[in-house]
Amino acid sequence: MTETADISARLRDGLRRLAKAVVVVTTQHRSQRYAMAATAVSELSMDPPSLLICVNRTAGLHAPLATGAGFCLNILHSSQAAIAAACSGGLTGEQRFEHGAWANRNGLPCLEGAQANFLCRNERSIDHGTHTIFIGLVEEVLTSGRPDPLVYVDGRYTGVQE
Amino acid sequence: MTETADISARLRDGLRRLAKAVVVVTTQHRSQRYAMAATAVSELSMDPPSLLICVNRTAGLHAPLATGAGFCLNILHSSQAAIAAACSGGLTGEQRFEHGAWANRNGLPCLEGAQANFLCRNERSIDHGTHTIFIGLVEEVLTSGRPDPLVYVDGRYTGVQE
Repeated sequence: MTETADISARLRDGLRRLAKAVVVVTTQHRSQRYAMAATAVSELSMDPPSLLICVNRTAGLHAPLATGAGFCLNILHSSQAAIAAACSGGLTGEQRFEHGAWANRNGLPCLEGAQANFLCRNERSIDHGTHTIFIGLVEEVLTSGRPDPLVYVDGRYTGVQE
Repeated sequence: MTETADISARLRDGLRRLAKAVVVVTTQHRSQRYAMAATAVSELSMDPPSLLICVNRTAGLHAPLATGAGFCLNILHSSQAAIAAACSGGLTGEQRFEHGAWANRNGLPCLEGAQANFLCRNERSIDHGTHTIFIGLVEEVLTSGRPDPLVYVDGRYTGVQE
């Protein structure tokens, strides 16, 4: 147990250096919208065009995704740190959509002015430990503005250097 | 076909905005060392402590990983762009280790001065499309220096803003 706790602490410390664009994952299920800021997102395959996200089983978004609901991955612009905060902190449910302009595309909440929106069909899921990997088949991609994403590193939000 | 090609192009365009720390994945199998720069890396679970990488089946590193070889994920420092280039371009095999100082830890090539090194047991693999997801059980984590990772965004290497 102690050894596991030690490695978990060192893992967290190491991961503070794994800089990542901040993504808000959204879904809609039975008329209810869900949003969650995440960095555990990765490109997976070009054929079929696929992305993956890792979601903690305790996250509110997990249950609708586990039923097979599709999802949208919204890469935030460097000016959208307030949206990241709203989608990761104390706010829940619909309150998380009070920051930013949200459209509905293909039945999914889609953030306007995001760096990119990836509309995904929920293709497959794999449980592993505390999390589930959801693989999305990318059905549509929108981009907006010049590349300037919000980045999470060392416990803070920032941007990339010019 | 055309539709798939279109979505693949839009996916690539959108992914240019998914800024990511640059990781060099290494492994060693039958005395041969392999290294590959990658951004398709994600934290997965804290219990058990797990990371994942997505590797194209055509990559040289895929075959040893498919046999179950362990791997090391090395997060590059912002000053290590030359190592990223060496591990993604025309160089192959041992030539990729000519840049940077490489130690051997637990039988795996481990980059000195990297932001972090995650030594992983090859726990599980999942094939999907052109790629395989390899899940690593994190057995050791080393960190070095203050957080200042190399980041890949919009087709170029850079760092994060202060």
